[in-house]
Amino acid sequence: MGNGIELFIKNKYLIMEEQVNRYVEENKQRFLDELFGLIRIPSISSESARKDDMYKAAEYWKNAIISAGADKAEIFSTAGNPVVYGEKMIDPSAPTVLVYGHYDVMPVDPVELWKSQPFEPEIRDGKIYARGADDDKGQAFMHAKAFELMIKTGTLPCNVKFMIEGEEEIGSVNLGKFCDDYKDMLKADIILVSDTSMIAPDIPSITTGLRGLSYMEVEVTGPNRDLHSGLYGGAVANPINILAKMIASLTDDDNRITIPGFYDDVMIVNQEERANMARAPFNLENYKKSIDINEVWGEKGYSTMERTGIRPSLDVNGIWGGYTGEGAKTVIPSRAYAKISMRLVPNQDNHKISKLFEEHFRKIAPPCVKVNVKALHGGQAYVSPTDMTAYKAAEKAYEAVYGITPVPVRSGGSIPIISTFEEKLGIKSILMGFGLESDAIHSPNENYPLEQFYNGIKTIPHFYRYFTELMKSLA
Amino acid sequence: MGNGIELFIKNKYLIMEEQVNRYVEENKQRFLDELFGLIRIPSISSESARKDDMYKAAEYWKNAIISAGADKAEIFSTAGNPVVYGEKMIDPSAPTVLVYGHYDVMPVDPVELWKSQPFEPEIRDGKIYARGADDDKGQAFMHAKAFELMIKTGTLPCNVKFMIEGEEEIGSVNLGKFCDDYKDMLKADIILVSDTSMIAPDIPSITTGLRGLSYMEVEVTGPNRDLHSGLYGGAVANPINILAKMIASLTDDDNRITIPGFYDDVMIVNQEERANMARAPFNLENYKKSIDINEVWGEKGYSTMERTGIRPSLDVNGIWGGYTGEGAKTVIPSRAYAKISMRLVPNQDNHKISKLFEEHFRKIAPPCVKVNVKALHGGQAYVSPTDMTAYKAAEKAYEAVYGITPVPVRSGGSIPIISTFEEKLGIKSILMGFGLESDAIHSPNENYPLEQFYNGIKTIPHFYRYFTELMKSLA
Repeated sequence: MGNGIELFIKNKYLIMEEQVNRYVEENKQRFLDELFGLIRIPSISSESARKDDMYKAAEYWKNAIISAGADKAEIFSTAGNPVVYGEKMIDPSAPTVLVYGHYDVMPVDPVELWKSQPFEPEIRDGKIYARGADDDKGQAFMHAKAFELMIKTGTLPCNVKFMIEGEEEIGSVNLGKFCDDYKDMLKADIILVSDTSMIAPDIPSITTGLRGLSYMEVEVTGPNRDLHSGLYGGAVANPINILAKMIASLTDDDNRITIPGFYDDVMIVNQEERANMARAPFNLENYKKSIDINEVWGEKGYSTMERTGIRPSLDVNGIWGGYTGEGAKTVIPSRAYAKISMRLVPNQDNHKISKLFEEHFRKIAPPCVKVNVKALHGGQAYVSPTDMTAYKAAEKAYEAVYGITPVPVRSGGSIPIISTFEEKLGIKSILMGFGLESDAIHSPNENYPLEQFYNGIKTIPHFYRYFTELMKSLA
Repeated sequence: MGNGIELFIKNKYLIMEEQVNRYVEENKQRFLDELFGLIRIPSISSESARKDDMYKAAEYWKNAIISAGADKAEIFSTAGNPVVYGEKMIDPSAPTVLVYGHYDVMPVDPVELWKSQPFEPEIRDGKIYARGADDDKGQAFMHAKAFELMIKTGTLPCNVKFMIEGEEEIGSVNLGKFCDDYKDMLKADIILVSDTSMIAPDIPSITTGLRGLSYMEVEVTGPNRDLHSGLYGGAVANPINILAKMIASLTDDDNRITIPGFYDDVMIVNQEERANMARAPFNLENYKKSIDINEVWGEKGYSTMERTGIRPSLDVNGIWGGYTGEGAKTVIPSRAYAKISMRLVPNQDNHKISKLFEEHFRKIAPPCVKVNVKALHGGQAYVSPTDMTAYKAAEKAYEAVYGITPVPVRSGGSIPIISTFEEKLGIKSILMGFGLESDAIHSPNENYPLEQFYNGIKTIPHFYRYFTELMKSLA
C-alpha cells in the first residue's frame, strides 16, 4: 500500500470512529434498557422448571435482531432449548460474519450471597450487577447493538448472521445437531464470539486457546438406608468417608491427576512457548489478593498461568450427602454424591477422558460400596492461531478503541461448542472477549462494567470493517 | 428365702401379670391414640423454627403425666427447650425410680424417602411408622402408660419421678445445668430409661454400655468467592478437594483413626471378655442383607460387634459444598463443609477428643485454605454393671414377659446425658430398651412394632415390683 492510500484509509477510520462514538453516545441509555430487559428473564438452562423463560429469552433475541435491521430472524426448535437465527445479507460476494452467543445463564445459588437480586440488574460503581450481565447476555448483546449501529449509520461492510443458543452452560447439547441440520444456512467465513475475558480494562487480549471439559457426576451407595451412626458407626462403610477417600486419591502429592492414561494425549508446550507465555502481564500477589488466598495451589513444575492455560485440571464442583441442616444429626447416609469436572487441553479427547474417569472411579471403589458414574457433558479443547485473518482484524479493532495491541492468551475456560463448530461447519472462531476476571461470572454478584459494554459495541464495527477489507484484499 | 415364700411370690406375680395384661388389653386403642397425639407434634430439636412445637410436646407430656395419676407435673424452662418434671410420692421410705425420656426427635430429611408423612403416624404390617415412633416418643410414652396402669390397678410399689427433656438429639445441652439446679428434686435410687434397642423381638437385651460422642462441624475456605472452574481450575485450591483429602487422611489403611492421641485412653477389653461378647447371637450374612451391603468395613483386627461395642469410630455425618442442583455448574466453591462425629468408648473424654480433633484438623490444613472447626456437642461413654440391683430387677421383668433371660449388650450408640446423670446426680441408669435395629431410628420410615410398644408397657410394672422388693430386701 502506498502512503496516499494509507492516509485515505486512516481518514476513513477517523470518520468511522466519530460515527461509532456518536451513535453509542446518543443511544447509551436505550442500549442498557434493552439489555436489562433480556437480563430480567431468568433463563437458567440447568433448571428444567425454566423452560418458559428459555422461550422468552429466545423471543427477546429474535425481536432484538429484527429491530436492529436484520432481513429475518427465526426461532428454531431443538430437542432442548431453541436456537435463534437471524441474518442480513447485503452482497453475496462479500464476506460473512456469523455471530455466536448464548442467552442461557448459570444458576444463582448461593443466592443469599448476592447483594442485589440476580435477575434485577442494578448499576453500582459503574458496573451492571446481575446473573448474565457478562456471561453471556451482556457480551452477546453488544453484537446486536453494534449490528444496529452499522445498519443505522450505513456502515455495515459485509453479511451478518446470528446464532444465539440456550444451552451453552449445559454443554450446548443440541447445537451440534443444529449445525449438521443447517450447515448451508450457517455458511460463513468466521464465527465471532464474545464470551471470554480480557486481561484488564486497559489491556485487551484475544483468547487463542480454550480448554476442553469432561463433567461427571458420581454416586456412592453404602447401606440401603440411612443408619444411626452410633449403632453402626465403625462397622459399616460410610459412603461420605469412602467418597472422600476416592476423591482424595484422584490427585497425588504433586497435584497430578492419577487416572491412568489421563496425560497420554496432552499437547506438550515447549520451553520457548512457555517462556513467551511468561511475558504476559501477571502479578501473583494481586492474583492472590483478588481472591483472598494465602497460597496458590496446583501441579508441580508449572506456573499459575500455565496451570490454567496449558495443563488439564480436576475439580469437585459440588459434593453432598448426609445431614446438612442446622445442628447435629448422627447419621451414616445411604448415599453420597459429587460433581467432578476435568478441564482438558488440546489433543485430549473429552469422550476418551470421560471413559477413563468412569473406568478408574469404578475400579477404585472398595467392595463395601456401589458406585454409579455418569458423564453430564463435555467438549474438546480449541486453539485459534494468531495468523488467521480474523485474528489480525480483531487486533486492529482493539487497537482502534484501546490504543494498544491486544495480547494473545490461552484461557483456562471452555466453550465446548467452539471446537464443534470447526468440526461440523469447518469454520474457525475468533474470540473477542470484553469480560474481566473480576466480573465474577458463574458466581454471586456477577457484574459487567458499563465501560466494557460500550467499548465492546465500539470495537465490533471496526472488526467488521478490517475483516472485510483483509478478506477482500486476499480474494 | 424358703419355698413357701417363693411360692407366695410366684402366685403374687401371676396375679399381677393377669392384671397388667388385662389393663393393657382394655386400653390398647386409647394408648395408641394418645401416643399418636404426641407423635403428630413435629418437635425436631435441631431446627430452631420448631420452638413452638417443643413447648407443645412438653405440654402434652405434662398432661399425660398428670392424667396418669401423678401428684404434680410442671414444665421447667431452660436456656433451650423446656424439661417436663412430674412425680408421685407414695412413701418416703420406699425406693424412688426416676424415669428419663425425651420428647424431641431427629430431622426427617430426606423426606422424599418416607412412604407416609413422618408426623402422621400410620400402622402398616403391625408397625407404627412415624418420626419418633420409637426414638423416643414411642419408648418413653410406654412409661407414662405403665405408670397409669400401676396407679389405676393399685399396684404402684414405689415413688416415681419423670424427667422428660427436649434436647436429647442435640446433645442434652441444658440438662446438665437442670440436674445441678434441681439435684434434690431429682433424688432417686435409679434412673430408668427406654431409649435403646433389644436384639430381636424374641431376644430381649439390656444395654450395659454406651459409646460417648464428639460431634464436630468443619468449614474449609478457599477463595473469597465462588470461582469459574475453567478460569481458575488447576491454579487455586478447591476447598472440596482439600476437604476430601483432609477427611481421607483421618483414617488409615487399617481404618484406624489417625488423630494423634485418639486411642490413648481407650479402655482395652481383654480376650476373655471379647470371647464372651462373641457368644451373643449375631449372623453376619443377615446383618449384611438387612442393610444390603456386599462387605462390612471397619477397624482391622475387630469383629463387627466389637467395632460398634468396644471400639471408637469416626463418621462424616454430612458434607456439602459447591453446586448440588440439577445438571452441571462449573464452579470452584468458596467453601466446603462437613459434620464429623466420633463415637467414643469408656475412658475416652469427649472434651479431650474434641480438642484433639480440632488441633489435628487445623494442623493438617494446607496453607492454601483456611479452616474453622467447632464442637457441636458431645457426651461421655457409659458402663452399666450387670451386678446392679436394677440390672437384676430388669432381668426378672423381661423374663416375666418374654420368658427368657435378657442378654447384656454393649451398644454402639450414645445417650450422652446418661453419664452426666451419674456425674451430677450420682445415680446409675438402667437401660431397658424395647426398640429393634429394624426400627430405622434417625432414618426415613422410622417405625416401632405395636408388639414392642405393648410388651414394653407390660414389662415396666414388673421392673418396679422387682426393684422395690430387691431394694427393700437389701435395706
